[in-house]
Amino acid sequence: MNAAAELQALVGEKTVLGASDAFTERHLRDFNIEAKGDAAAPVAVAYPSSTEDVSKILKYCNDHDIPVVPQGGLSGLCGGAVPVRPSLLMSLERMRAVQDVDTSGGTMTVQAGVTLDTVQKTADENGLLFPLDTGGRHAHIAGNASTNAGGNRVLRYGMMRDLILGVEAVLMDGTVISSMNRMIKNNTGYDLKQLFIGSEGTLGVITRLVLRLHPKPLSVSTALCALPGFDDAVKLLNHVRPRLGGQLSAFEVMWPGFYETGTVKLNRTPPLPLNDETGIYVLMEAMGGDPDGDPERFASVMGEALEQGLVLDAVVAQSDKDARELWAIRDCPGEFQAAGHMPQLGFDVSVPTGQIGEFARQVDERLTAKWPKHKTLYFGHIADGNLHVSVKLDENAGTEHEMDEMLYELIGEWGGSISAEHGIGLHKKPYLHYSRSSEELALMRSIKSAMDPKGLLNPGKVI
Amino acid sequence: MNAAAELQALVGEKTVLGASDAFTERHLRDFNIEAKGDAAAPVAVAYPSSTEDVSKILKYCNDHDIPVVPQGGLSGLCGGAVPVRPSLLMSLERMRAVQDVDTSGGTMTVQAGVTLDTVQKTADENGLLFPLDTGGRHAHIAGNASTNAGGNRVLRYGMMRDLILGVEAVLMDGTVISSMNRMIKNNTGYDLKQLFIGSEGTLGVITRLVLRLHPKPLSVSTALCALPGFDDAVKLLNHVRPRLGGQLSAFEVMWPGFYETGTVKLNRTPPLPLNDETGIYVLMEAMGGDPDGDPERFASVMGEALEQGLVLDAVVAQSDKDARELWAIRDCPGEFQAAGHMPQLGFDVSVPTGQIGEFARQVDERLTAKWPKHKTLYFGHIADGNLHVSVKLDENAGTEHEMDEMLYELIGEWGGSISAEHGIGLHKKPYLHYSRSSEELALMRSIKSAMDPKGLLNPGKVI
Repeated sequence: MNAAAELQALVGEKTVLGASDAFTERHLRDFNIEAKGDAAAPVAVAYPSSTEDVSKILKYCNDHDIPVVPQGGLSGLCGGAVPVRPSLLMSLERMRAVQDVDTSGGTMTVQAGVTLDTVQKTADENGLLFPLDTGGRHAHIAGNASTNAGGNRVLRYGMMRDLILGVEAVLMDGTVISSMNRMIKNNTGYDLKQLFIGSEGTLGVITRLVLRLHPKPLSVSTALCALPGFDDAVKLLNHVRPRLGGQLSAFEVMWPGFYETGTVKLNRTPPLPLNDETGIYVLMEAMGGDPDGDPERFASVMGEALEQGLVLDAVVAQSDKDARELWAIRDCPGEFQAAGHMPQLGFDVSVPTGQIGEFARQVDERLTAKWPKHKTLYFGHIADGNLHVSVKLDENAGTEHEMDEMLYELIGEWGGSISAEHGIGLHKKPYLHYSRSSEELALMRSIKSAMDPKGLLNPGKVI
Repeated sequence: MNAAAELQALVGEKTVLGASDAFTERHLRDFNIEAKGDAAAPVAVAYPSSTEDVSKILKYCNDHDIPVVPQGGLSGLCGGAVPVRPSLLMSLERMRAVQDVDTSGGTMTVQAGVTLDTVQKTADENGLLFPLDTGGRHAHIAGNASTNAGGNRVLRYGMMRDLILGVEAVLMDGTVISSMNRMIKNNTGYDLKQLFIGSEGTLGVITRLVLRLHPKPLSVSTALCALPGFDDAVKLLNHVRPRLGGQLSAFEVMWPGFYETGTVKLNRTPPLPLNDETGIYVLMEAMGGDPDGDPERFASVMGEALEQGLVLDAVVAQSDKDARELWAIRDCPGEFQAAGHMPQLGFDVSVPTGQIGEFARQVDERLTAKWPKHKTLYFGHIADGNLHVSVKLDENAGTEHEMDEMLYELIGEWGGSISAEHGIGLHKKPYLHYSRSSEELALMRSIKSAMDPKGLLNPGKVI
């Protein structure tokens, strides 16, 4: 009897499919990266519908030395859920129950396979907010947890790590670690949930989560500003942040090339909310609790910034439609193809906020020295230190690794991070040493050995 | 040559004192708990002044099987820094440099022994806020980190864990793990710093930290309210929180016995800002960015709550002096002796916010059944699920363990936490199983073994 058949006997016929099945295909790639060679022939695909199933399957695989790759919505960007050798692929997509919403305590208890979209809508229906705001709404919530997803509102609400109170996860040997804490304060020994958050499924398979919900904002103010240069954007951030008293929820910086791409290159109507010849652009958002007073306060803080010359020009959204149009400019990476900015290489890095401007200048310098015809767009969540770089390398498509090496080496020199929010997965693993010391890497390996001694859980990822 | 002499040869005479030295005395107790028997005779006391010293001392002790107890400001409440067997006591008090303040990025880099007070003042001098607000200002910042300190402003700014971006720590074998990240977003592999935060010095000795600073508030509004009962306090929280748009910074609930103690029993002037015959009391604080508009907004939100009958009576502070007087009521545990509420047993537990009222009622029921003359005061940071219980057991002082057992068993039944913010240390170790499963405890032990195979670092604590 083969593994698939034995697993079927263990957890039911419908829970495990043999590798020959037509369903397999969609489990072999994430948003960017595809399984290659041997890895494209999985041992089986499992669709557990309970924590118990997950535990049984993992124990079986551990006993039989079968690698396991946990999979969520497969919307990741670094190959964290893509197999690198023949493995059992474990999709959590059947575990999609919202088990509890506690409006007094502000918590939601969900199974792993609930989508971010469902979490957001459920919070909203209960008069609350789940603030994680990334591009991938069809991501599974446990995928967001295991990659510690970020996005636009981190400066106000934190990363996914900050939005998780409890985790239930299963170790490779089948042990269920149920740390389904529901309180903000809980100092009872080691905070085990932290091990599973951001470790990209290499230490355990997350089966359930207790999420932290926030009060729903009663007002939203949005503005697009044009500024002389990057340093002014930092000054603007330090001007508006205290004056909005913690209500600033997004501060997205766009360099001119990016702004041009998100507007004129996409033939937007209206074409240009602000002219495209200024040094830098900032999209700002504040979320408040006073629908009558907040817009006035927002306008007054913006007015001060204009008077002080921090901002050269600005438009404040007067309606939801206005706000959506301003956000569409920032969200243009989804339309890079239509804007002619393809093929592209994307980078997600971080350095301290005040250094981003100089860092971006240096990236451009090095790119130009090597690839004079490159077309590079810069944008970022600068309050978090997070810069995104999108490079179009028309003239020389075979240099991907060379570019990675160059950029991540530079990040190493700056003491920055080679992955601000997308994770390491498969793609960034060779460059991890630019952001982490050999002692840190050794400690990561020692934790990995302690929790998965045979190295069977999501092998070949992260470390 | 004995260990002290060998260590002196290694790191210098002034860095290590023999156990006979007069300085030893103060290293044998924290705020509550004292070293007993053998443990009161340490091998030596070390005062390293650099990470390198810490590394050398730990390596020596690891090689020679000498237990090490790291010590900060010794203001802990659970004995986490008190030795349980003859050990080397390592005080970080000489490592007290503030190494960097980055006002653009909002970070401060400090050595372990900097006090919380110094961190707060330094942030303030740089126009920023370090929001951790606990009773113990002379705590060392690394002690706050290793116990994951909480306090009054957690609902707005999070626990100490949320205020730390980077950690440098030394493992028992002398390996320096330098994860001095300065960015909000950094997803480069396992988030190692989480291992050292809240693990009470059992996994490594924290030597440096990168702290996250927040914008300094430009306005503070404070009010004391009297409400019919606990459920109304939850309703009030859910009323004010969204309407203050994220600016609510404290929401402290006091049961009538506590309120009476903090006012009339201490002979305050004025004696009673609100009468002492109401069901429950709430001290609220909001921090905003608009000194002109915020007080009006705060008053209007309070006015609505009064109109809706959520609040029966309220006083809003009109000056800093008013605010200090209102906070003095909440801060009365420091004066329990003067108020005649001594000797007392203190508890720091958590259950989900909406259940705290019923939980407190049940605690009182069980206490009364067993100790009819007990006098118990209840207060808490309810938005965090955190309840403090202070019991005066005049009639039967020998029942401390019995009371602990009763209360923590009840917490277990409620799925709560036996330590919301004080940690486990020595004192709560026997009860940890009420909040953690055997699988969780086994995983904690396995992490401990991986990082400190000989079990020499802060032995006898937490697990």
